[in-house]
Amino acid sequence: MTYCVAMRLAEGLVCVSDSRTNAGVDHIAVFRKLHRFGIDGERLIVLQSAGNLATSQSVVTLLRQRINSDDGLHLDNVPTMFEAARLVGKTLREVLAHDDIDRDFSCSFLLSGQIAGEAPQLYNIYPQGNFIAATEDTPYFQIGESKYGKPILDRALNYQLSLEKALRCALISFDSTIRSNLSVGTPLDLLVYRHDSLRLPTGRRLYDDDPYWAMIRTQWSEGLKQAMASMPPPPEEYWV
Amino acid sequence: MTYCVAMRLAEGLVCVSDSRTNAGVDHIAVFRKLHRFGIDGERLIVLQSAGNLATSQSVVTLLRQRINSDDGLHLDNVPTMFEAARLVGKTLREVLAHDDIDRDFSCSFLLSGQIAGEAPQLYNIYPQGNFIAATEDTPYFQIGESKYGKPILDRALNYQLSLEKALRCALISFDSTIRSNLSVGTPLDLLVYRHDSLRLPTGRRLYDDDPYWAMIRTQWSEGLKQAMASMPPPPEEYWV
Repeated sequence: MTYCVAMRLAEGLVCVSDSRTNAGVDHIAVFRKLHRFGIDGERLIVLQSAGNLATSQSVVTLLRQRINSDDGLHLDNVPTMFEAARLVGKTLREVLAHDDIDRDFSCSFLLSGQIAGEAPQLYNIYPQGNFIAATEDTPYFQIGESKYGKPILDRALNYQLSLEKALRCALISFDSTIRSNLSVGTPLDLLVYRHDSLRLPTGRRLYDDDPYWAMIRTQWSEGLKQAMASMPPPPEEYWV
Repeated sequence: MTYCVAMRLAEGLVCVSDSRTNAGVDHIAVFRKLHRFGIDGERLIVLQSAGNLATSQSVVTLLRQRINSDDGLHLDNVPTMFEAARLVGKTLREVLAHDDIDRDFSCSFLLSGQIAGEAPQLYNIYPQGNFIAATEDTPYFQIGESKYGKPILDRALNYQLSLEKALRCALISFDSTIRSNLSVGTPLDLLVYRHDSLRLPTGRRLYDDDPYWAMIRTQWSEGLKQAMASMPPPPEEYWV
């Protein structure tokens, strides 16, 4: 399994992915699911993947190879993020057709970034290769094991939230998911991008011994317990 | 969809069920999914259901009819909670065989209660009719749409938690689920039982205008936001 979240907010983008893959509970490995493309000063494109690893790796490999071959449309020359999303969808369909496999072995992607001259975008690319775009009403997408980590996003996240608060919120969402589902695991790959900077952030990989991540995990549990303890007890008539 | 949770704790039992059923998004109705059986002073048995409504209603109807017919084993005369769980599983298989339908139309149950002379029990009855029992290590079960509401239970619930705190915890778990999944909805049916009282609690139905439930919903959101706000911001190196 996998958990990836991407947010497109007023100030910028926040992307976090786990890195655990599993084929059965006795075949667990670490694979990066957050891939950065772009040209410093001109474009940043972030691709996060969930689903069949053979398929998603092939898609990422083809996308990278084509940049180097410089032949036709690729992620370093697409004029818009919309065209970038179409290109990823088309490459996904190409891999599925080449490997002659059906949608059960497909994968889904979050594609986010900014190309000079247009606004930043975030797309959720479905296993069929078509996609939807994030808006101010719905500023985030999740792929993979999304349910455990959704309540905190639904409550705390909105388009105007600052990048650093949104990153806290994303890490809490990952903590909730990791606690409840063994198939989602550290290290986490995260990347924060400030709109119109057109810089390529190197991102960060968080291991279990990262002090901030460890603090988030402990303090959030404590915070929840305190929030629960501070609520008044149910009225007596509930007990009859 | 449905969400039911039942807890077997040191002090007693806490059971909460939603009441929304749906066949597609344009066919929503309210049906009780928490059913109380028993004899005051001798036994309390609580049955919560998720899954196909035609199947679960038939099972509950047969279980009730057989108490009145007083012929053979039924919920008012089974000697143990283990036998009660077997009886529910058997009745489920009987309904599936009678209606000649497969497991896709099956349902699952939480069965909890106490019969004089033995310890309280909580069973999770699978769509196949077999079941597992809660323990001190795993003091709660969920059926239906369980993921959104699981993180708070995994963090805050343990066998020694007081009944009233466990009830708060259950209501928060329902709030998280209802916010994220339209197919789970109020009113909620809840029932709290103190071990060895052998009383039949009438339970309580919570509508959206219930002041305590409304307070939980508002205050929990505020508490989460405060817990998030009180955490330090991520270190600068996360942003590079």
